[in-house]
Amino acid sequence: MTDIMRLAPAEAERFTTAVLEKAGLRASDAATAARAIVEADLAGVDTHGIIRLPMYVAWLGDGRIDARAEIEVERTMPAVALLDGRGAMGHLCMTRAAEIAADAARTYGIGWVGLRNSNHAGAIGIYAARLAREGFISICGAVSAINQVAPWGGSEPLMGTNPIAFAVPGEEEAPVVFDMATTIASLGMIKKYAMEGRPMPEGWIVDREGRPMTDASRHAEGLLLPVGEHKGSGLALMIGLIAAVANGADFGRGLGEGGRPVSVGQFVLALDGRALAPGFREKVDEIVRDFGKSAPVAGGGPVRVPGVGRAEKEAERKVRGIPIGAALMHELALLADRSGVARPAYAAG
Amino acid sequence: MTDIMRLAPAEAERFTTAVLEKAGLRASDAATAARAIVEADLAGVDTHGIIRLPMYVAWLGDGRIDARAEIEVERTMPAVALLDGRGAMGHLCMTRAAEIAADAARTYGIGWVGLRNSNHAGAIGIYAARLAREGFISICGAVSAINQVAPWGGSEPLMGTNPIAFAVPGEEEAPVVFDMATTIASLGMIKKYAMEGRPMPEGWIVDREGRPMTDASRHAEGLLLPVGEHKGSGLALMIGLIAAVANGADFGRGLGEGGRPVSVGQFVLALDGRALAPGFREKVDEIVRDFGKSAPVAGGGPVRVPGVGRAEKEAERKVRGIPIGAALMHELALLADRSGVARPAYAAG
Repeated sequence: MTDIMRLAPAEAERFTTAVLEKAGLRASDAATAARAIVEADLAGVDTHGIIRLPMYVAWLGDGRIDARAEIEVERTMPAVALLDGRGAMGHLCMTRAAEIAADAARTYGIGWVGLRNSNHAGAIGIYAARLAREGFISICGAVSAINQVAPWGGSEPLMGTNPIAFAVPGEEEAPVVFDMATTIASLGMIKKYAMEGRPMPEGWIVDREGRPMTDASRHAEGLLLPVGEHKGSGLALMIGLIAAVANGADFGRGLGEGGRPVSVGQFVLALDGRALAPGFREKVDEIVRDFGKSAPVAGGGPVRVPGVGRAEKEAERKVRGIPIGAALMHELALLADRSGVARPAYAAG
Repeated sequence: MTDIMRLAPAEAERFTTAVLEKAGLRASDAATAARAIVEADLAGVDTHGIIRLPMYVAWLGDGRIDARAEIEVERTMPAVALLDGRGAMGHLCMTRAAEIAADAARTYGIGWVGLRNSNHAGAIGIYAARLAREGFISICGAVSAINQVAPWGGSEPLMGTNPIAFAVPGEEEAPVVFDMATTIASLGMIKKYAMEGRPMPEGWIVDREGRPMTDASRHAEGLLLPVGEHKGSGLALMIGLIAAVANGADFGRGLGEGGRPVSVGQFVLALDGRALAPGFREKVDEIVRDFGKSAPVAGGGPVRVPGVGRAEKEAERKVRGIPIGAALMHELALLADRSGVARPAYAAG
């Protein structure tokens, strides 16, 4: 592909911060959110990074995100807090939640924060990965603001793609980070296909009569299929109950009806590695190395442990920059012009 | 099927307790383990209840389970404990772990117990369900003692079916309980097919060359396929790291080599409902009822939320008894005779 350009991480953060400030965020909040957005791109999660910036700006414009919201935190029990984002950017809510969970874990061994009135926070795996880099095991979950998944056996869209992420620290190796939507394809992946005008593979989405759909631009008319049939559906339900209902956030029928902004729910768990078996982080390294050297399927490439690819991409992108395709370059140029900030400066791909 | 008989829960517990005592357990431990075993049958998890009793007795005989082990618990940080089962029955380890996690959660809002040197504990969903009945949200995970799953893209069996279970309390409705193996079929399900001499559907197991296998009796030669391809594989890995490696239990290559008993790892998380949003349990009830009334797929039956079927089965089986097929009746009769205890008394199906 000759139409891929490279965007240096510092330039990506500069541009994202400037756009978010123009959209109303305080300078420090804009910088915090920009860091989280670009972190997804650095980790290779192209579907959940800067590609979402036009969407966030639109939501800041229509009131779905409140640029100046003051996040409230209630410590309900010693190691548990409920965070009310009051409509702030999800990246700010999740960044704060991860810090609170880590603080509780440093004292009690484990900390839990449940969020409500939050917003889309990009790739939740980055918050889990941050905690793992500080020596915590982390589990994070999030509930989508859009219902496009039916409970297994049903035909009504009552759930979202509700992702869950796990991260475990190694000692010398990068953390093992695994972040999955509970659908076969994430909505971010489908939107990327739509932006690029590519047809989706069969099996990601069906229409209301259960027939396969491949036109990504019409995805909103279809139902996303859960991964592993009833198992993905069950996971989406449990994440819905734990990340949203338990925190007073929205889940189930009627999401966003009447133009009311959706109260997005998430959770962050941090478990202090000092409370666990001595030497476990070295053993994690051993597993990562051994699985990576294990025999591949006939004709296949090397076995990849989740997190290894992230670390490699991050190392490469910090040097060479984040690859940006023609469609996204076009979107970002429009956004720059509308926002009145300088367009991103790219290097050749 | 005319060859199904019914076993009353009290009689199932009487028989299971007697067999376990004859195998060397203290009377109180035998009763505790029997309760957990029969609880799986009551919940409808036929693959993980009394059907496993001959296996547990064999392991008590060959030293893989230590009938008289004294479980050790170390409180490593205020809300976190590591439990060393010292080879005790997994049901005793998990019962104790759930109690400790609940105690910590009552004080700190959340509690976590990591286990090592435990054993197969039946269906981990029953421990999560117990905690939910006491008002906690629970997540439990377990690592298998048998490696029959390759990391995605690999061909070596380095992981087990590593299940994860979630339970969330309702107010009037039964808890929502979701318990899944990270493979398409659990090993328990495959063993049930083997015992009944039935061929498996294609897609559960492949041989080392990747060809489908349907002969359940030869399952040990094959590789179980992860649910959702790389996603099930990723989940199995993360559960392996969190439920085993973090606790000093076994995971990865060489499991059980040299005849050494496998150090089985599990974890139990309990999150106190009092730390969460007021009224969330009523909202859980609403979701359960609404999803259950939602439109099914064309030609399908009603939508079922996980946990509803369990509660219905439990209510029915408490009255009518646990259904036991001819193959299992035969196994239990042999076990009774070998153990020198009275055979189970059945009622007509």
